[in-house]
Amino acid sequence: MCRWLAYSGSPILLEALLYRPEHSLIDQSRHARMGVETTNGDGFGVGWYEPDAETPAVFRSIEPAWNDRNVREVASHVRSPLFLSHIRASTGTAVQQTNCHPFRYDKWLWVHNGLVRDFHLVKRDLSLAVDESLYPYIEGSADSETLFYLALTFGLEDDPPKAVERMVGFVEEVGHRHGVEHPIQMTIGTSDGKSVWAFRYSSEGDSRTLFYSTDVRTVRELHPELEVLQLVSEETRIVVSEPLGDLSGAWNEVPESSYGVVQDGEDELRPFRPAYSQSGG
Amino acid sequence: MCRWLAYSGSPILLEALLYRPEHSLIDQSRHARMGVETTNGDGFGVGWYEPDAETPAVFRSIEPAWNDRNVREVASHVRSPLFLSHIRASTGTAVQQTNCHPFRYDKWLWVHNGLVRDFHLVKRDLSLAVDESLYPYIEGSADSETLFYLALTFGLEDDPPKAVERMVGFVEEVGHRHGVEHPIQMTIGTSDGKSVWAFRYSSEGDSRTLFYSTDVRTVRELHPELEVLQLVSEETRIVVSEPLGDLSGAWNEVPESSYGVVQDGEDELRPFRPAYSQSGG
Amino acid sequence: MCRWLAYSGSPILLEALLYRPEHSLIDQSRHARMGVETTNGDGFGVGWYEPDAETPAVFRSIEPAWNDRNVREVASHVRSPLFLSHIRASTGTAVQQTNCHPFRYDKWLWVHNGLVRDFHLVKRDLSLAVDESLYPYIEGSADSETLFYLALTFGLEDDPPKAVERMVGFVEEVGHRHGVEHPIQMTIGTSDGKSVWAFRYSSEGDSRTLFYSTDVRTVRELHPELEVLQLVSEETRIVVSEPLGDLSGAWNEVPESSYGVVQDGEDELRPFRPAYSQSGG
Amino acid sequence: MCRWLAYSGSPILLEALLYRPEHSLIDQSRHARMGVETTNGDGFGVGWYEPDAETPAVFRSIEPAWNDRNVREVASHVRSPLFLSHIRASTGTAVQQTNCHPFRYDKWLWVHNGLVRDFHLVKRDLSLAVDESLYPYIEGSADSETLFYLALTFGLEDDPPKAVERMVGFVEEVGHRHGVEHPIQMTIGTSDGKSVWAFRYSSEGDSRTLFYSTDVRTVRELHPELEVLQLVSEETRIVVSEPLGDLSGAWNEVPESSYGVVQDGEDELRPFRPAYSQSGG
Repeated sequence: MCRWLAYSGSPILLEALLYRPEHSLIDQSRHARMGVETTNGDGFGVGWYEPDAETPAVFRSIEPAWNDRNVREVASHVRSPLFLSHIRASTGTAVQQTNCHPFRYDKWLWVHNGLVRDFHLVKRDLSLAVDESLYPYIEGSADSETLFYLALTFGLEDDPPKAVERMVGFVEEVGHRHGVEHPIQMTIGTSDGKSVWAFRYSSEGDSRTLFYSTDVRTVRELHPELEVLQLVSEETRIVVSEPLGDLSGAWNEVPESSYGVVQDGEDELRPFRPAYSQSGG
Repeated sequence: MCRWLAYSGSPILLEALLYRPEHSLIDQSRHARMGVETTNGDGFGVGWYEPDAETPAVFRSIEPAWNDRNVREVASHVRSPLFLSHIRASTGTAVQQTNCHPFRYDKWLWVHNGLVRDFHLVKRDLSLAVDESLYPYIEGSADSETLFYLALTFGLEDDPPKAVERMVGFVEEVGHRHGVEHPIQMTIGTSDGKSVWAFRYSSEGDSRTLFYSTDVRTVRELHPELEVLQLVSEETRIVVSEPLGDLSGAWNEVPESSYGVVQDGEDELRPFRPAYSQSGG
Repeated sequence: MCRWLAYSGSPILLEALLYRPEHSLIDQSRHARMGVETTNGDGFGVGWYEPDAETPAVFRSIEPAWNDRNVREVASHVRSPLFLSHIRASTGTAVQQTNCHPFRYDKWLWVHNGLVRDFHLVKRDLSLAVDESLYPYIEGSADSETLFYLALTFGLEDDPPKAVERMVGFVEEVGHRHGVEHPIQMTIGTSDGKSVWAFRYSSEGDSRTLFYSTDVRTVRELHPELEVLQLVSEETRIVVSEPLGDLSGAWNEVPESSYGVVQDGEDELRPFRPAYSQSGG
Repeated sequence: MCRWLAYSGSPILLEALLYRPEHSLIDQSRHARMGVETTNGDGFGVGWYEPDAETPAVFRSIEPAWNDRNVREVASHVRSPLFLSHIRASTGTAVQQTNCHPFRYDKWLWVHNGLVRDFHLVKRDLSLAVDESLYPYIEGSADSETLFYLALTFGLEDDPPKAVERMVGFVEEVGHRHGVEHPIQMTIGTSDGKSVWAFRYSSEGDSRTLFYSTDVRTVRELHPELEVLQLVSEETRIVVSEPLGDLSGAWNEVPESSYGVVQDGEDELRPFRPAYSQSGG
């Protein structure tokens, strides 16, 4: 049910994370270890920011990532200081580019691992809650895209954590109204090209895995043999559905019901609490 | 902007209409004469009924029809007494299978040539009017699919002409509310596996072309040299966006603002009048 | 590294074997148990014969079989007394329809599981040995296709077992000349629309698995609860890379270095011995 | 039958030539004016060099260029000082990425407009003449790819004009041996990342069109209103199958049976004469 990663730091070739690590994202497309399925072969996407471009580029493909030659070509020639990538395992909706992540709106990117349970029951109510001005931008049929436009409706561009908390609260309220016990299961990554926000939450309190990389200085000391660590800046940070390899000391789990912010200055890790409408949503 | 055909009659190989005529539907995918574009290369679809199957089969592809080998294979091996086929020229929405025609719901198929003008302005209002039970079946983002689910909402399964008249009336009302002068342009073909309904209408009274084949007996007399005409039953009828060839006497234009029914017994050709809500919609 | 099946018997819907069994071929595309890889997501194909068609139909797709809707549509509407189907896990050559199995020449179909080792070393010599009149029909780059055209060159149409024995002998000779220790690994299925030949062989004597279904009468007695067994004729036979389910008594392994023939009258199972050029090849 | 362009000069976004001109390459994919077909919808490719990459990147797609969103994304984010792009109209061979141009070998790229006549008759002889060490790199089935590997065999890396003259001479000799009157029709673009060579030739002396851009200084004087011309260096040069717009004075036709070299220092335009084997080929 999908794997994703987000990178923020010194500009690197996309392939440095998509292909080179022993358990790279592309490797995870066939051999995921911590997901519901080992195979994530229903689509691939990568969105990357460039210093001087107004909006991020988004490359999305319905071919399995492991055999898509264009992905390899792009990944080995594009260099970026901030990118999000995603491999998809469909939970039922069509395999088409418009259902591949990341979704993009203006300068924002969005990736999701998980699902809205009984989406067919709640899809209409969720869609109707999307702001009228945003509604026409929905192009696909995936629950993940609807979550994105709901978050935008609830103020993602102004206050991402608060907007996602309101979005999740709303989805849970709608789900419960339709008799869905645990309406949402998610890890979510989103960015405006400067910061990256990563959320881990599920209605049942048993969320998909999510990890962030340890401070570069620490890993450098633990693994002086790794050249690449000498090259990237100390601000560099990676968030992943599952670790890219077995490097001891390199990965920390994002706690249940939490979110993190990768940003200029100190990164943050905070509790995540859905905001329900009676509490101002 | 799309071409389509509907066939009803003696069972024939799909290729008899898709490939063999001099100006076959596949030929029209690159060399349409009467359309807005000569190229219809943004997707292909064919839906066919079989005597003993409950629902029709639907094969849809985003490859251009002229170079899709699977279309050729299927067309040269599948035999059917009733089928609809469509080649797409996108007016902006994504090229994906879920935007290819025919759309299917239960035993119904639907093809459309034309567009809902300023669809981004009215999409939300139109989608909200789709019956709650039908809403989750919308998979794509094309205006044509929304028209189908609106027609189903307005009773397509019970009285197709009336349902389409109410659908068109509603689309025009919504369009006018949003300041769209001529909200809809369409030829539409739909079937339940027994009859075929074909509609020609546009808000501006200048609709895309639509033709139906002359009574088989008449063409037989005009063209005794054509063997195939000896083989098909006298009930056989073809409806097409543009004629499949230059056979004199074989094709009649469906008049502006009209619809026809191909059915057991006498076929019909009648005026089409949008039904507005004040008149009971 | 690929899975395949061949069916011969009473006409059935393709889906009866492709989708319905608990461990159907489509299930094997994500969850193969006996292959080198659990995932066979690099292409799908099915070729089927019809009583009155001169050549078999071939549908091939580069999408993973598990998410290809057209495969499902075709499989649930096409009925055939003899078909071969294949799911691909590329060993390096491009993912393209012309590398998908079955390959077709005239009325012959061909599927292969395995590989020619160090194919890049021997490809030229093998290709040059293909008969001049056949050479232009090679469309892809897969070793499996070259094996097919070599078998045709060596007389597949006249005496399939002898032709395949000569083909394998030739491939081993060429491989050894280039220093390849174990040049070929294979199970192969081929048909002319009347009989099916299934081969199991590898230079190292450790071949990919291959199974054939037990006599229908025997399984009927073992499993009187299974309705489908009452419907198919006693001549019905299935050959598969791995069993379609855990039905006890239903599957027999094709022995190492053997081939079987499914045909009118008694089926056969015989030893397979590569024929080398000094022995007349 | 295909259109292509080659750009060499100041680094620009690929979209500056692929999308922005009024008759851009993407526009030519649906509305070519000087080709045999107006539609070039059987594949797209672009190969670009970057200052510090060893080999060029190659992005190839079987979707029609006009509706491929990934092409648009890549083109609007990738900047390069030297790139070749191609849109394909198949003359019969399969629509697959390995038949899309540009073809790449090491640091070389190759695009072709035209065909080898009766390719099925001569394909085997041409393929056999490809150097043994190069043969395994042929991945597709297109005549254009065979021409590339023949040119490499004849010394493309050392002396491109001489190698192409020998290649053409050889193709004509083989064609004549098989009774083909006019064996080859071509415009070809090739590059090693530093220079671009462009060839125009056909056995019948009636070659596909080819144009090169006028010296930047001249066009600047003619069109002071065009900002972009102020930005690119005076070394900038474009070679195209047909002009990208109607800018008077901007385009010169490459004469029949000629080739040009875009390089550091003075560009060259010279006669092209096939070299036959008796003359040392």
